[in-house]
Amino acid sequence: MNSSAGVLYIVSAPSGAGKTTLCKELSKVMPALSHSISHTTRKPRPGEVDGEHYYFVDAEKFMEMVASGEFVEWATVHGNLYGTSRAELTRLFDQGREVIVDIDTQGAMQIKKSGTPGVFIFILPPSMEELERRLRGRESDDDNEIKRRLGRAVDEIRSYGEYDYVIVNDDFDRALDALRSVMIAEKNTVDRIDRVWMKNKFGI
Amino acid sequence: MNSSAGVLYIVSAPSGAGKTTLCKELSKVMPALSHSISHTTRKPRPGEVDGEHYYFVDAEKFMEMVASGEFVEWATVHGNLYGTSRAELTRLFDQGREVIVDIDTQGAMQIKKSGTPGVFIFILPPSMEELERRLRGRESDDDNEIKRRLGRAVDEIRSYGEYDYVIVNDDFDRALDALRSVMIAEKNTVDRIDRVWMKNKFGI
Repeated sequence: MNSSAGVLYIVSAPSGAGKTTLCKELSKVMPALSHSISHTTRKPRPGEVDGEHYYFVDAEKFMEMVASGEFVEWATVHGNLYGTSRAELTRLFDQGREVIVDIDTQGAMQIKKSGTPGVFIFILPPSMEELERRLRGRESDDDNEIKRRLGRAVDEIRSYGEYDYVIVNDDFDRALDALRSVMIAEKNTVDRIDRVWMKNKFGI
Repeated sequence: MNSSAGVLYIVSAPSGAGKTTLCKELSKVMPALSHSISHTTRKPRPGEVDGEHYYFVDAEKFMEMVASGEFVEWATVHGNLYGTSRAELTRLFDQGREVIVDIDTQGAMQIKKSGTPGVFIFILPPSMEELERRLRGRESDDDNEIKRRLGRAVDEIRSYGEYDYVIVNDDFDRALDALRSVMIAEKNTVDRIDRVWMKNKFGI
């Protein structure tokens, strides 16, 4: 292979843009892709397995890891701590995997600032109207929650310029194809060419 | 659409790497893609149509165009002049097309130096051994011609570092998918986002 090192893909999207469904379908068409497993201080829910859904740790252990710089990003959500560890990324790359981190814009910007090389992808809804329609279609949130999510969506969308790619999820199949295409294209960028492979194959 | 401006793709490959077949199949899966039509001083062959296969011009006209900087690249091949004009690229972009220029490394480097924005893609054969096998399989060239082509191939491959993407044509379907993926990914790069579209859709 001309490019063997795994690539880290960071995918962000406002709630309702369809990121979860996209990432799920993406795993089916990209078998070499693994989702990184986060550390969390949240208690396991029934059926959740340590080291499969999350690495469950207590707050003391988590803050020790923060202090020793073991996370490429971490955040507090509803009073619980969540983070992506460097060790987890290394573990997956050592297995020859491509790695996807599905994360909000603040987490993505932390990864960017950490200097970890990665490909940053932002998923956009087709419009604010369509986003609102999708959020209301869930029927699980009340009006205030929907307004809060829409406000948060605008804040997240404001960060799109910090990403490498922006994919509009106006048509699911087209968006999935674009996401997959970005990953395949990135594997073929000249900077990822294995110079030793070139030397062996072409003597140059 | 979030990204409407056409993109110029410059594709180079050593003879025998399979570029012609790849580009032909690519046109089938990418209907918005047009090949640019070159100017040439070569006489039309039977069945060749001016403005379809080439723009046929005489040497005087061609050199006038060279002098007035109308070509993004031009070259002499077997005593005939060939060139890609800026007007041809503009014509296709004005029609809303994506444009592919299928050209050798010297022509590609001329386009790069001309400052014309483009995506530069290099197609590699799987190995020199396989390239030689393919060239010998054609049975149309004698041993000296094959040796000449192999020497030229090494010279061309030496330029791969000047390109944005390098695609190895070890498996036709995989290489075609990679080429198509590069084109789709490039349409989704953040720099190609239409800022007016973003403003209209999201108010930011």
